[in-house]
Amino acid sequence: MNTQNIVERIREIINDETVEQLKEELASYHEADLADIFVELKPEERLICFKLLDVDKAADMMEFLSPQLQVELLGDIDEELASSILTKLPHDAAADVLGDMEEDESETYLDKLPQKFSDEVRELLTYNENTAGGIMNPVVLTVNSDMSVKDVLNHIRSRAEEDNMELYYVYVVDKQNHLLGVVSLRKLLTSPINQKVEDIMISDIVRLHVDDYSDFIIDEFMKYQYNALPVVDLYNRLKGMITWDDVHDLFEEETTEEIYQSSGISTEIVDEDEILSGNILNAITARTPWLFITLLGEFIAVHVAHHFDHTFSMLPIVATFMPLLAGLGGNIGTQSITLMVRGLSTGQVTMSSAFHHIFREFFVGLAIGVLFGGLVMLATWGWQHNIGLGLVVGTAMAVNMTMATIIGSFTPFALKVLKVDPAVASGPVIATTIDVVGLAVYFSLVTFYLVHVL
Amino acid sequence: MNTQNIVERIREIINDETVEQLKEELASYHEADLADIFVELKPEERLICFKLLDVDKAADMMEFLSPQLQVELLGDIDEELASSILTKLPHDAAADVLGDMEEDESETYLDKLPQKFSDEVRELLTYNENTAGGIMNPVVLTVNSDMSVKDVLNHIRSRAEEDNMELYYVYVVDKQNHLLGVVSLRKLLTSPINQKVEDIMISDIVRLHVDDYSDFIIDEFMKYQYNALPVVDLYNRLKGMITWDDVHDLFEEETTEEIYQSSGISTEIVDEDEILSGNILNAITARTPWLFITLLGEFIAVHVAHHFDHTFSMLPIVATFMPLLAGLGGNIGTQSITLMVRGLSTGQVTMSSAFHHIFREFFVGLAIGVLFGGLVMLATWGWQHNIGLGLVVGTAMAVNMTMATIIGSFTPFALKVLKVDPAVASGPVIATTIDVVGLAVYFSLVTFYLVHVL
Repeated sequence: MNTQNIVERIREIINDETVEQLKEELASYHEADLADIFVELKPEERLICFKLLDVDKAADMMEFLSPQLQVELLGDIDEELASSILTKLPHDAAADVLGDMEEDESETYLDKLPQKFSDEVRELLTYNENTAGGIMNPVVLTVNSDMSVKDVLNHIRSRAEEDNMELYYVYVVDKQNHLLGVVSLRKLLTSPINQKVEDIMISDIVRLHVDDYSDFIIDEFMKYQYNALPVVDLYNRLKGMITWDDVHDLFEEETTEEIYQSSGISTEIVDEDEILSGNILNAITARTPWLFITLLGEFIAVHVAHHFDHTFSMLPIVATFMPLLAGLGGNIGTQSITLMVRGLSTGQVTMSSAFHHIFREFFVGLAIGVLFGGLVMLATWGWQHNIGLGLVVGTAMAVNMTMATIIGSFTPFALKVLKVDPAVASGPVIATTIDVVGLAVYFSLVTFYLVHVL
Repeated sequence: MNTQNIVERIREIINDETVEQLKEELASYHEADLADIFVELKPEERLICFKLLDVDKAADMMEFLSPQLQVELLGDIDEELASSILTKLPHDAAADVLGDMEEDESETYLDKLPQKFSDEVRELLTYNENTAGGIMNPVVLTVNSDMSVKDVLNHIRSRAEEDNMELYYVYVVDKQNHLLGVVSLRKLLTSPINQKVEDIMISDIVRLHVDDYSDFIIDEFMKYQYNALPVVDLYNRLKGMITWDDVHDLFEEETTEEIYQSSGISTEIVDEDEILSGNILNAITARTPWLFITLLGEFIAVHVAHHFDHTFSMLPIVATFMPLLAGLGGNIGTQSITLMVRGLSTGQVTMSSAFHHIFREFFVGLAIGVLFGGLVMLATWGWQHNIGLGLVVGTAMAVNMTMATIIGSFTPFALKVLKVDPAVASGPVIATTIDVVGLAVYFSLVTFYLVHVL
C-alpha cells in the first residue's frame, strides 16, 4: 500500500466528489491503514474524514494513532460523538487518551461516559502509566473453579459479545476474585464438556503485579512468549490482563530508548517522545548532559595536546594527523561498545563470558589496527616521503585501534558490576577516554621518535 | 529468578545428591527458565541434566535455546531420543534445528522421523530461512466454508490434541486448499451453533506470501497487530501460518541489525549472529568497510589541516583545539542522525515532515552551540589569557555544532530520496563529513583572526 497515493486520491475526492463517495472510500480501508492515512492528511482534511467514519471504525482506528492525534481528533468533534467513540475503546486505550488530556477536559468526558466504564477507567488512571496497572485492560473473562467446561462455554457465549473484551485465556478465580489458575481457549475446546474447570486449569502460572514496571513486563513477555499475562494486586486479586500488543508498543519504546542512549541522548530526565517533537527545551535538556561530559573530557585531550606545543612548532605535520587517529579510534571503539551493550541487553553476552568477549575484541582490534596502521604508514610515507613519520603514525593507529576495542568492550562490563546501566553511560564517556588515551599514545611515540631517531 | 543461584544449587545436587532429586528439581522449572539455566551450565552438566528431562519438557525447552545449543544437545544424546524430541517440536522449530546441522547429520534424523512429519519439514527446508516459507508453521487447522459452527468445534476437538498445532484462528479453505477466509476462536464461541462458517468468516484478510521477506513480515505484524497471519503460495493456496512469537524473534534480530548499523557494523555481507560469536574473520569483515570509508574521509581532514601547517608553527595552541571541536561536532551530529534514522524507522518522522525536523535540529544545534561556544570561549580566555583565541574557538564551536545538526538531520532524508538505506550509510559518512567541514570552518576563522586581527 502506498499511503502517499491514497492520500492524493482522498484529497481529490474531498475536492471533486460527493460525501457519499468519500465515506465509501474511507470505509474500504483497514483501520491500521486508515491511521497511516490520517497521519499524512492536513488537520482540516482529517476532521472531514473522521466525521464520516462510523463509530466502530473510528474507535478501531484510534488505537493505531499517536496519543496527540487521538486527543486532537476527539477535541475537534462534538462531545456526544467523542464519548460514544471512547466507550467503544478497550478500557486501557480509553485511559491512555484521557490520561493525555488536560484534567478538566478528561473530566468532562468521564462524566459523560457510562458509570461502570468511567469508574473502571478512573481506577486505571490512578496507576503510574509505566506500570502493569497503567497498562492493563481491567476487563477479563473470569470463571469459578467448580464450573464445568460446558458452563464456561455458555458463559463465554453470553459475555464475549462485549466490545472491549479481549479473549485469549479464561482466568479462574474464587469468590473474592483471587487468581487460582488459567485455562486456554484451546484447552476448553478440546476437553470433555462435563469436566470441571479445576481439573483442566493450570494453577502454576506466571502473573504480573500492578506495580511491575514496563521493562520487567517486557522481559516476562519476551522470555515466556505468552499472548497475555494476568495482573494481580498485593493480595493476588485479579485486576486485569496485559496482552502482547500492549507489550509490542512498550518494546518499540524501549528499543528507541536503547538507541537514543547509545548516542548520548538521555531518556532519564526527559520522556522519550518529548525529544523528537514537543517542547524544544526538553529536546535540548535531553541532549546536553552527555555533550557536557564530552566537553570536559575533550578539555583533558586539549591539555594533553598542549604539552606538545613545541612539537607542533617544530614538526607541524604531527598535528594534522590528530583527527585521523581520534576518528578511527573512536569509530572502532564505538563498534565494540555497541556489540557489548546490545549483547548484554539480548542475553547473547553474559557476565560470565566477559573475558571471552574482551579477548575477542582485542584480537579484532589488533587485526584491523595492524591492517589500517600498515595502510596509513604507506600513505604517509608516500605523501610526506618520510618513513619515520609513517612508522610513527602507523604504529599509533594500530595501538589506538587495539586499545579502543579493549576499552570499548571492557567498560560496559565494569559499569554493570558498578550497577550503572551500560547503555546509558558507555557511549560518550568511552569515546572521550579513547580520544585522550589515543592522543597520549600518539604523542609519546612522536616524542620517542624525535628524541631517539631524529 | 536469579539464574546464577539456581545454577549453583543444581551443581550441588549433581555432586552430592541422587539422580531422583536432580530430576525433581529440573522438573520444577518453567521451560523458559530451564533454557536460561542450561545456557549457564557447563557442557557436561548440561548433558547430565538434559537426559533427565522428560521428552515433552525437553522439546518445550528446545524452543527457547539458541540454534547452536540445540544442535549441540541433540548431537550428544542417542539418536532415538533425539528423534523423539524432534517429533515433539512444531514443524518450523524442527526445521530450524535441522537446517543448522550439517546436511548428512540432518538427513540421519530426517530418515528416523515419521514419514509425514519429515516430508513436511523437508518442504520447509526448501524455503529461504528469511522468508515467510522458511519461518511459517505448516500445520494449520483448516475447515470448509459449508461446515457449521458445530462441525468446526467437533473438528477442533478431534484435531487440536496434536502436539505441534498452534490454535489462534481457524482458516477456511476450498477443496483445493485455496484460502477463503478466517474465523477467530472467539467468533466461533459466540456464534449460533448451526450457523455456516461462510456466514461468520472474514474474507477480506491480510495474508503473507511464502516469498515475503522477514522485514516485510515484521512490518505487517507490527502494523496490524494480529496474533497470526496465514501464508499462501502464488495461487493463494494455504501453506502455513506465522504467529507473533515467530515475529518476536525476527523483531529482536532486526533491532540488533539497526543498532549495529548505527555504529557502522555492516550486516549486509555478514550474518548478524556471526559478528558477536562464530568465525572471527567474519567479525573483522563486518567491521572493516565503514572504518575504511572513515579512513578515506579522515585523510581529507588531514589534507585540510595540512594547509595550515604554517599556522601550527606560528601558533601551536591552534592545533590543540582540534580534538575538542571534532569530538563535540561529531557527538551532536550523531544525535541528530540517530533521531532521524530511528524516527524514519518507527514512522514518527516522515518525508513530508523533513523540513520541520531539519529546522528543529538546526535550532537545537544553534542553542546548544551558542551555550557550549560561550563556555569554551570563557575557558580558553581564562586559560590562555587571550580573548581573541577564545572568540575564535568559541565561534568555531558554535558554528560546528549548528552545522553538525543540519548535516546530521539532512543526510538521512537525502539518502532516502536516493533509495539508500539511511540506517546503513548515515553514521560513519556523516561523522567524517562533520570532521572535514568543522576543521575547514575552524581554520578559516583562525586565518581571518591571524590576518585581520593580529
